[in-house]
Amino acid sequence: MTRTRFHQNLDDLKEKLLVMAGMAEQATQRAIEAYRVGDVSICDLVTRSEPAINRMERDIDQMALDLLAMEQPMAIDLRFILSVIKINADLERVGDQAVNIAERVHDLQSLPQVELPVDIPKLATLAATMVRNALQAFIDADPAMAEKVLLMDDEVDEMNRAIFRTLTRCIQDRPEHSQQALDVLIIARNLERVGDHATNIAEDVIFWVRGADVRHHLQTGS
Amino acid sequence: MTRTRFHQNLDDLKEKLLVMAGMAEQATQRAIEAYRVGDVSICDLVTRSEPAINRMERDIDQMALDLLAMEQPMAIDLRFILSVIKINADLERVGDQAVNIAERVHDLQSLPQVELPVDIPKLATLAATMVRNALQAFIDADPAMAEKVLLMDDEVDEMNRAIFRTLTRCIQDRPEHSQQALDVLIIARNLERVGDHATNIAEDVIFWVRGADVRHHLQTGS
Repeated sequence: MTRTRFHQNLDDLKEKLLVMAGMAEQATQRAIEAYRVGDVSICDLVTRSEPAINRMERDIDQMALDLLAMEQPMAIDLRFILSVIKINADLERVGDQAVNIAERVHDLQSLPQVELPVDIPKLATLAATMVRNALQAFIDADPAMAEKVLLMDDEVDEMNRAIFRTLTRCIQDRPEHSQQALDVLIIARNLERVGDHATNIAEDVIFWVRGADVRHHLQTGS
Repeated sequence: MTRTRFHQNLDDLKEKLLVMAGMAEQATQRAIEAYRVGDVSICDLVTRSEPAINRMERDIDQMALDLLAMEQPMAIDLRFILSVIKINADLERVGDQAVNIAERVHDLQSLPQVELPVDIPKLATLAATMVRNALQAFIDADPAMAEKVLLMDDEVDEMNRAIFRTLTRCIQDRPEHSQQALDVLIIARNLERVGDHATNIAEDVIFWVRGADVRHHLQTGS
Protein backbone atom coordinates (compact mmCIF):
# COMPACT_ATOMS: atom_id res chain seq x y z
CA MET A 1 0.00 0.00 0.00
CA THR A 2 1.52 3.33 -0.95
CA ARG A 3 1.65 6.21 1.48
CA THR A 4 -0.96 8.09 -0.57
CA ARG A 5 -3.33 5.14 -0.62
CA PHE A 6 -2.89 4.87 3.15
CA HIS A 7 -3.84 8.51 3.58
CA GLN A 8 -6.86 8.02 1.35
CA ASN A 9 -7.91 5.25 3.75
CA LEU A 10 -7.40 7.59 6.71
CA ASP A 11 -9.69 10.10 5.01
CA ASP A 12 -12.33 7.39 4.50
CA LEU A 13 -12.05 6.49 8.18
CA LYS A 14 -12.54 10.12 9.17
CA GLU A 15 -15.55 10.46 6.89
CA LYS A 16 -17.16 7.34 8.34
CA LEU A 17 -16.63 8.72 11.85
CA LEU A 18 -18.47 11.88 10.82
CA VAL A 19 -21.41 9.80 9.61
CA MET A 20 -21.38 8.05 12.99
CA ALA A 21 -21.37 11.44 14.72
CA GLY A 22 -24.36 12.54 12.63
CA MET A 23 -26.28 9.45 13.67
CA ALA A 24 -25.55 9.98 17.38
CA GLU A 25 -26.45 13.66 17.10
CA GLN A 26 -29.72 12.92 15.34
CA ALA A 27 -30.69 10.37 18.01
CA THR A 28 -30.08 12.93 20.76
CA GLN A 29 -31.99 15.68 18.95
CA ARG A 30 -34.93 13.37 18.36
CA ALA A 31 -35.03 12.27 22.01
CA ILE A 32 -35.22 15.90 23.11
CA GLU A 33 -37.81 16.69 20.44
CA ALA A 34 -39.87 13.77 21.83
CA TYR A 35 -39.57 15.36 25.28
CA ARG A 36 -40.45 18.84 24.03
CA VAL A 37 -43.59 17.89 22.13
CA GLY A 38 -44.46 14.79 24.20
CA ASP A 39 -44.51 12.42 21.23
CA VAL A 40 -43.91 8.74 21.98
CA SER A 41 -43.60 7.84 18.28
CA ILE A 42 -40.38 9.89 18.13
CA CYS A 43 -39.07 7.87 21.11
CA ASP A 44 -39.56 4.72 19.06
CA LEU A 45 -37.53 6.22 16.20
CA VAL A 46 -34.67 6.78 18.63
CA THR A 47 -34.83 3.24 20.01
CA ARG A 48 -34.92 1.78 16.52
CA SER A 49 -31.83 3.74 15.44
CA GLU A 50 -29.64 2.03 18.06
CA PRO A 51 -28.74 -1.14 16.09
CA ALA A 52 -27.54 0.94 13.13
CA ILE A 53 -25.34 3.04 15.40
CA ASN A 54 -23.90 -0.12 16.95
CA ARG A 55 -23.16 -1.62 13.53
CA MET A 56 -21.44 1.57 12.45
CA GLU A 57 -19.28 1.49 15.58
CA ARG A 58 -18.12 -2.03 14.70
CA ASP A 59 -17.41 -1.10 11.08
CA ILE A 60 -15.26 1.85 12.11
CA ASP A 61 -13.32 -0.21 14.67
CA GLN A 62 -12.64 -2.83 12.03
CA MET A 63 -11.46 -0.24 9.49
CA ALA A 64 -9.11 1.22 12.12
CA LEU A 65 -7.79 -2.20 13.02
CA ASP A 66 -7.20 -3.07 9.35
CA LEU A 67 -5.23 0.13 8.87
CA LEU A 68 -3.06 -0.61 11.89
CA ALA A 69 -2.49 -4.17 10.70
CA MET A 70 -1.66 -3.38 7.08
CA GLU A 71 0.73 -0.55 7.58
CA GLN A 72 3.20 0.57 10.18
CA PRO A 73 1.80 4.04 10.67
CA MET A 74 3.94 7.00 11.52
CA ALA A 75 3.49 8.40 15.03
CA ILE A 76 1.10 11.17 13.97
CA ASP A 77 -1.10 8.74 12.00
CA LEU A 78 -1.02 6.27 14.87
CA ARG A 79 -2.33 8.91 17.22
CA PHE A 80 -5.02 9.80 14.70
CA ILE A 81 -6.20 6.18 14.40
CA LEU A 82 -6.25 5.72 18.17
CA SER A 83 -8.24 8.94 18.51
CA VAL A 84 -10.78 7.65 16.00
CA ILE A 85 -11.20 4.44 18.02
CA LYS A 86 -11.79 6.40 21.22
CA ILE A 87 -14.08 9.01 19.66
CA ASN A 88 -16.06 6.19 18.05
CA ALA A 89 -16.70 4.60 21.46
CA ASP A 90 -17.84 7.94 22.87
CA LEU A 91 -20.23 8.54 19.99
CA GLU A 92 -21.80 5.12 20.49
CA ARG A 93 -22.40 6.03 24.13
CA VAL A 94 -23.96 9.34 23.12
CA GLY A 95 -26.41 7.17 21.16
CA ASP A 96 -27.03 5.12 24.33
CA GLN A 97 -27.82 8.30 26.25
CA ALA A 98 -30.36 9.24 23.58
CA VAL A 99 -32.04 5.86 24.07
CA ASN A 100 -32.06 6.37 27.85
CA ILE A 101 -33.70 9.76 27.39
CA ALA A 102 -36.29 8.30 25.02
CA GLU A 103 -37.17 5.67 27.67
CA ARG A 104 -37.75 8.38 30.26
CA VAL A 105 -39.90 10.39 27.83
CA HIS A 106 -41.91 7.24 27.24
CA ASP A 107 -42.43 6.92 30.99
CA LEU A 108 -43.36 10.60 31.29
CA GLN A 109 -46.03 10.20 28.63
CA SER A 110 -47.67 7.43 30.68
CA LEU A 111 -48.07 9.83 33.63
CA PRO A 112 -50.27 12.89 34.16
CA GLN A 113 -48.59 15.87 32.52
CA VAL A 114 -47.13 18.42 34.93
CA GLU A 115 -45.22 21.65 34.43
CA LEU A 116 -41.74 21.56 35.95
CA PRO A 117 -39.73 24.80 36.12
CA VAL A 118 -36.58 23.50 34.42
CA ASP A 119 -35.32 24.13 30.89
CA ILE A 120 -34.27 20.73 29.55
CA PRO A 121 -34.10 21.85 25.87
CA LYS A 122 -31.62 24.56 26.89
CA LEU A 123 -29.38 21.99 28.60
CA ALA A 124 -29.78 19.70 25.58
CA THR A 125 -28.75 22.46 23.18
CA LEU A 126 -25.63 23.15 25.21
CA ALA A 127 -24.68 19.46 25.37
CA ALA A 128 -25.35 18.99 21.64
CA THR A 129 -23.26 22.08 20.83
CA MET A 130 -20.40 20.56 22.81
CA VAL A 131 -20.56 17.38 20.73
CA ARG A 132 -20.78 19.32 17.47
CA ASN A 133 -17.87 21.62 18.40
CA ALA A 134 -15.75 18.68 19.53
CA LEU A 135 -16.33 17.03 16.14
CA GLN A 136 -15.61 20.31 14.34
CA ALA A 137 -12.36 20.56 16.29
CA PHE A 138 -11.58 17.06 15.07
CA ILE A 139 -12.36 17.90 11.42
CA ASP A 140 -10.30 21.10 11.53
CA ALA A 141 -7.57 19.60 13.73
CA ASP A 142 -8.16 22.63 15.94
CA PRO A 143 -7.07 22.15 19.56
CA ALA A 144 -8.11 25.71 20.51
CA MET A 145 -11.71 24.88 19.63
CA ALA A 146 -11.41 21.62 21.57
CA GLU A 147 -10.32 23.57 24.64
CA LYS A 148 -13.46 25.69 24.42
CA VAL A 149 -15.47 22.47 24.63
CA LEU A 150 -13.72 21.63 27.89
CA LEU A 151 -14.80 24.97 29.34
CA MET A 152 -18.42 24.45 28.23
CA ASP A 153 -18.53 21.27 30.31
CA ASP A 154 -18.39 23.32 33.51
CA GLU A 155 -21.45 25.21 32.32
CA VAL A 156 -23.32 21.96 31.68
CA ASP A 157 -22.39 20.66 35.14
CA GLU A 158 -23.56 23.87 36.80
CA MET A 159 -26.83 23.84 34.86
CA ASN A 160 -27.37 20.23 35.86
CA ARG A 161 -26.75 20.99 39.53
CA ALA A 162 -29.30 23.83 39.39
CA ILE A 163 -31.87 21.50 37.79
CA PHE A 164 -31.20 18.94 40.52
CA ARG A 165 -31.84 21.54 43.24
CA THR A 166 -35.01 22.81 41.56
CA LEU A 167 -36.45 19.33 41.09
CA THR A 168 -35.65 18.36 44.68
CA ARG A 169 -37.70 21.34 45.83
CA CYS A 170 -40.52 20.41 43.41
CA ILE A 171 -40.61 16.91 44.86
CA GLN A 172 -40.75 18.21 48.42
CA ASP A 173 -43.52 20.70 47.59
CA ARG A 174 -45.58 18.36 45.38
CA PRO A 175 -44.73 14.74 46.22
CA GLU A 176 -47.56 13.58 43.94
CA HIS A 177 -45.39 14.78 41.02
CA SER A 178 -42.24 13.02 42.16
CA GLN A 179 -42.32 10.33 39.47
CA GLN A 180 -42.33 12.98 36.75
CA ALA A 181 -39.66 15.03 38.51
CA LEU A 182 -37.43 11.94 38.79
CA ASP A 183 -37.81 11.21 35.08
CA VAL A 184 -36.74 14.75 34.25
CA LEU A 185 -33.86 14.54 36.71
CA ILE A 186 -32.59 11.40 34.97
CA ILE A 187 -32.94 13.09 31.56
CA ALA A 188 -30.82 15.98 32.86
CA ARG A 189 -28.14 13.55 34.04
CA ASN A 190 -28.17 11.78 30.68
CA LEU A 191 -27.57 15.12 28.99
CA GLU A 192 -24.74 15.83 31.42
CA ARG A 193 -23.20 12.54 30.29
CA VAL A 194 -23.52 13.60 26.64
CA GLY A 195 -21.46 16.62 27.64
CA ASP A 196 -18.91 14.31 29.29
CA HIS A 197 -18.56 12.34 26.07
CA ALA A 198 -18.01 15.59 24.15
CA THR A 199 -15.30 16.41 26.69
CA ASN A 200 -13.65 13.04 26.08
CA ILE A 201 -13.74 13.69 22.33
CA ALA A 202 -12.25 17.15 22.76
CA GLU A 203 -9.44 15.71 24.87
CA ASP A 204 -8.74 13.10 22.19
CA VAL A 205 -8.53 15.85 19.56
CA ILE A 206 -5.99 17.74 21.66
CA PHE A 207 -4.07 14.51 22.23
CA TRP A 208 -4.01 13.80 18.52
CA VAL A 209 -3.07 17.27 17.31
CA ARG A 210 -0.68 18.37 20.00
CA GLY A 211 0.79 14.95 20.54
CA ALA A 212 0.63 15.59 24.25
CA ASP A 213 -1.90 14.03 26.55
CA VAL A 214 -3.84 16.85 28.20
CA ARG A 215 -6.40 14.62 29.83
CA HIS A 216 -6.84 15.50 33.49
CA HIS A 217 -4.52 18.48 33.21
CA LEU A 218 -7.56 20.73 33.12
CA GLN A 219 -10.26 20.34 35.71
CA THR A 220 -13.18 19.62 33.43
CA GLY A 221 -15.44 17.51 35.60
CA SER A 222 -16.35 14.00 34.55
CA MET B 1 13.43 -5.25 19.41
CA THR B 2 13.14 -9.03 19.32
CA ARG B 3 9.83 -10.78 19.34
CA THR B 4 10.52 -12.05 22.88
CA ARG B 5 11.34 -8.59 24.15
CA PHE B 6 8.12 -7.38 22.56
CA HIS B 7 6.12 -10.00 24.41
CA GLN B 8 7.85 -9.09 27.66
CA ASN B 9 6.63 -5.54 27.05
CA LEU B 10 3.09 -6.83 26.45
CA ASP B 11 3.27 -8.60 29.82
CA ASP B 12 4.41 -5.39 31.50
CA LEU B 13 1.48 -3.58 29.90
CA LYS B 14 -0.94 -6.22 31.19
CA GLU B 15 0.53 -6.02 34.68
CA LYS B 16 0.20 -2.25 34.74
CA LEU B 17 -3.44 -2.54 33.67
CA LEU B 18 -4.05 -4.87 36.62
CA VAL B 19 -2.58 -2.29 39.00
CA MET B 20 -4.95 0.26 37.42
CA ALA B 21 -7.85 -2.14 37.97
CA GLY B 22 -6.87 -2.56 41.62
CA MET B 23 -6.87 1.21 42.10
CA ALA B 24 -10.33 1.61 40.52
CA GLU B 25 -11.69 -1.29 42.55
CA GLN B 26 -10.31 0.08 45.80
CA ALA B 27 -11.85 3.50 45.11
CA THR B 28 -15.27 1.91 44.55
CA GLN B 29 -15.03 -0.26 47.66
CA ARG B 30 -14.02 2.71 49.77
CA ALA B 31 -16.90 4.84 48.45
CA ILE B 32 -19.38 2.11 49.42
CA GLU B 33 -17.69 1.64 52.78
CA ALA B 34 -18.10 5.39 53.34
CA TYR B 35 -21.81 5.00 52.53
CA ARG B 36 -22.20 1.97 54.78
CA VAL B 37 -20.59 3.44 57.87
CA GLY B 38 -21.37 7.09 57.10
CA ASP B 39 -17.76 8.24 57.28
CA VAL B 40 -16.85 11.41 55.38
CA SER B 41 -13.12 10.91 55.92
CA ILE B 42 -13.30 7.81 53.68
CA CYS B 43 -14.98 9.97 50.99
CA ASP B 44 -11.95 12.23 51.07
CA LEU B 45 -9.65 9.24 50.54
CA VAL B 46 -11.62 8.39 47.40
CA THR B 47 -11.48 11.93 46.05
CA ARG B 48 -7.76 12.14 46.72
CA SER B 49 -7.08 8.88 44.83
CA GLU B 50 -8.42 10.30 41.55
CA PRO B 51 -5.26 12.09 40.32
CA ALA B 52 -3.20 8.89 40.75
CA ILE B 53 -5.76 6.90 38.74
CA ASN B 54 -5.69 9.54 36.01
CA ARG B 55 -1.89 9.48 35.88
CA MET B 56 -1.90 5.71 35.63
CA GLU B 57 -4.36 5.90 32.72
CA ARG B 58 -1.99 8.20 30.84
CA ASP B 59 1.03 5.99 31.56
CA ILE B 60 -0.74 2.91 30.22
CA ASP B 61 -1.93 4.71 27.08
CA GLN B 62 1.59 5.90 26.43
CA MET B 63 3.05 2.40 26.90
CA ALA B 64 0.47 1.02 24.46
CA LEU B 65 1.22 3.74 21.94
CA ASP B 66 4.97 3.13 22.22
CA LEU B 67 4.46 -0.58 21.56
CA LEU B 68 2.36 0.15 18.47
CA ALA B 69 4.92 2.65 17.20
CA MET B 70 8.01 0.53 17.76
CA GLU B 71 6.84 -2.72 16.34
CA GLN B 72 4.43 -3.86 13.68
CA PRO B 73 2.38 -6.17 15.87
CA MET B 74 0.74 -9.32 14.59
CA ALA B 75 -3.05 -9.26 14.41
CA ILE B 76 -3.57 -11.03 17.75
CA ASP B 77 -1.17 -8.69 19.58
CA LEU B 78 -2.75 -5.69 17.88
CA ARG B 79 -6.15 -6.73 19.22
CA PHE B 80 -4.63 -7.20 22.66
CA ILE B 81 -3.10 -3.71 22.69
CA LEU B 82 -6.33 -2.12 21.50
CA SER B 83 -8.25 -4.00 24.20
CA VAL B 84 -5.86 -2.66 26.83
CA ILE B 85 -6.47 0.89 25.61
CA LYS B 86 -10.23 0.44 25.83
CA ILE B 87 -10.21 -1.40 29.17
CA ASN B 88 -7.95 1.33 30.55
CA ALA B 89 -10.50 4.01 29.64
CA ASP B 90 -13.29 2.01 31.30
CA LEU B 91 -11.28 1.55 34.49
CA GLU B 92 -10.62 5.28 34.69
CA ARG B 93 -14.36 5.86 34.46
CA VAL B 94 -15.02 3.31 37.21
CA GLY B 95 -12.77 5.54 39.32
CA ASP B 96 -14.91 8.54 38.30
CA GLN B 97 -18.04 6.72 39.45
CA ALA B 98 -16.39 6.08 42.82
CA VAL B 99 -15.74 9.82 43.14
CA ASN B 100 -19.37 10.57 42.21
CA ILE B 101 -20.57 8.14 44.90
CA ALA B 102 -18.24 9.70 47.47
CA GLU B 103 -19.72 13.14 46.66
CA ARG B 104 -23.24 11.85 47.28
CA VAL B 105 -22.17 10.20 50.55
CA HIS B 106 -20.70 13.55 51.56
CA ASP B 107 -24.05 15.21 50.85
CA LEU B 108 -25.93 12.48 52.75
CA GLN B 109 -23.78 13.08 55.80
CA SER B 110 -24.78 16.74 55.82
CA LEU B 111 -28.47 15.75 56.09
CA PRO B 112 -30.52 14.13 58.87
CA GLN B 113 -29.95 10.39 58.76
CA VAL B 114 -32.91 8.36 57.51
CA GLU B 115 -33.44 4.65 56.93
CA LEU B 116 -34.25 3.81 53.31
CA PRO B 117 -35.37 0.27 52.46
CA VAL B 118 -32.82 -0.38 49.69
CA ASP B 119 -29.69 -2.53 49.79
CA ILE B 120 -26.97 -0.42 48.17
CA PRO B 121 -24.07 -2.60 49.45
CA LYS B 122 -25.67 -5.61 47.75
CA LEU B 123 -25.84 -3.75 44.42
CA ALA B 124 -22.26 -2.56 44.96
CA THR B 125 -21.04 -6.10 45.58
CA LEU B 126 -22.66 -7.29 42.38
CA ALA B 127 -21.19 -4.44 40.32
CA ALA B 128 -17.73 -4.94 41.89
CA THR B 129 -17.90 -8.67 41.19
CA MET B 130 -18.64 -7.88 37.54
CA VAL B 131 -15.52 -5.72 37.31
CA ARG B 132 -13.39 -8.33 39.06
CA ASN B 133 -14.67 -11.18 36.88
CA ALA B 134 -14.20 -9.13 33.71
CA LEU B 135 -10.59 -8.53 34.72
CA GLN B 136 -10.12 -12.19 35.61
CA ALA B 137 -11.50 -13.09 32.17
CA PHE B 138 -8.88 -10.75 30.74
CA ILE B 139 -6.03 -12.32 32.77
CA ASP B 140 -7.09 -15.87 31.87
CA ALA B 141 -8.05 -14.98 28.27
CA ASP B 142 -11.35 -16.68 29.12
CA PRO B 143 -14.27 -15.56 26.91
CA ALA B 144 -16.70 -17.92 28.69
CA MET B 145 -16.14 -16.06 31.94
CA ALA B 146 -16.54 -12.75 30.09
CA GLU B 147 -19.91 -13.91 28.82
CA LYS B 148 -21.06 -14.57 32.37
CA VAL B 149 -20.28 -10.93 33.14
CA LEU B 150 -22.61 -9.87 30.33
CA LEU B 151 -25.44 -11.86 31.92
CA MET B 152 -24.81 -10.33 35.35
CA ASP B 153 -25.42 -6.91 33.85
CA ASP B 154 -29.11 -7.73 33.42
CA GLU B 155 -29.26 -8.52 37.13
CA VAL B 156 -27.68 -5.18 38.01
CA ASP B 157 -30.13 -3.34 35.75
CA GLU B 158 -33.10 -5.12 37.31
CA MET B 159 -31.84 -4.41 40.84
CA ASN B 160 -31.40 -0.77 39.92
CA ARG B 161 -34.93 -0.51 38.52
CA ALA B 162 -36.32 -2.01 41.75
CA ILE B 163 -34.34 0.52 43.81
CA PHE B 164 -35.69 3.32 41.62
CA ARG B 165 -39.29 2.17 42.21
CA THR B 166 -38.76 1.81 45.97
CA LEU B 167 -37.17 5.24 46.33
CA THR B 168 -39.91 6.87 44.25
CA ARG B 169 -42.45 5.47 46.71
CA CYS B 170 -40.34 6.64 49.66
CA ILE B 171 -40.27 10.14 48.24
CA GLN B 172 -44.02 10.19 47.73
CA ASP B 173 -44.69 8.89 51.24
CA ARG B 174 -42.09 11.02 53.02
CA PRO B 175 -41.27 14.08 50.86
CA GLU B 176 -39.20 15.49 53.73
CA HIS B 177 -36.69 12.70 53.02
CA SER B 178 -36.53 13.31 49.29
CA GLN B 179 -33.05 14.84 49.32
CA GLN B 180 -31.64 11.71 50.96
CA ALA B 181 -33.63 9.43 48.66
CA LEU B 182 -32.31 11.31 45.59
CA ASP B 183 -28.73 10.93 46.80
CA VAL B 184 -29.21 7.19 47.18
CA LEU B 185 -30.92 6.99 43.79
CA ILE B 186 -27.90 8.65 42.17
CA ILE B 187 -25.54 6.27 44.01
CA ALA B 188 -27.53 3.34 42.60
CA ARG B 189 -27.21 4.74 39.08
CA ASN B 190 -23.47 5.24 39.55
CA LEU B 191 -23.18 1.58 40.53
CA GLU B 192 -25.20 0.60 37.47
CA ARG B 193 -22.65 2.49 35.40
CA VAL B 194 -19.83 0.57 37.09
CA GLY B 195 -21.61 -2.57 35.86
CA ASP B 196 -21.79 -1.06 32.36
CA HIS B 197 -18.04 -0.51 32.38
CA ALA B 198 -17.51 -4.13 33.46
CA THR B 199 -19.71 -5.12 30.51
CA ASN B 200 -17.55 -3.06 28.16
CA ILE B 201 -14.44 -4.74 29.53
CA ALA B 202 -15.97 -8.21 29.13
CA GLU B 203 -16.86 -7.40 25.51
CA ASP B 204 -13.30 -6.26 24.86
CA VAL B 205 -11.97 -9.54 26.29
CA ILE B 206 -14.22 -11.54 23.96
CA PHE B 207 -13.16 -9.31 21.05
CA TRP B 208 -9.51 -9.87 21.87
CA VAL B 209 -9.65 -13.62 22.44
CA ARG B 210 -12.15 -14.69 19.84
CA GLY B 211 -11.04 -12.15 17.27
CA ALA B 212 -14.69 -11.47 16.55
CA ASP B 213 -16.53 -8.42 17.70
CA VAL B 214 -19.44 -9.58 19.85
CA ARG B 215 -20.43 -6.13 20.96
CA HIS B 216 -24.15 -5.58 20.55
CA HIS B 217 -24.73 -9.18 19.48
CA LEU B 218 -26.04 -9.92 22.96
CA GLN B 219 -28.64 -7.68 24.50
CA THR B 220 -26.76 -6.58 27.56
CA GLY B 221 -28.27 -3.20 28.28
CA SER B 222 -26.07 -0.17 28.38
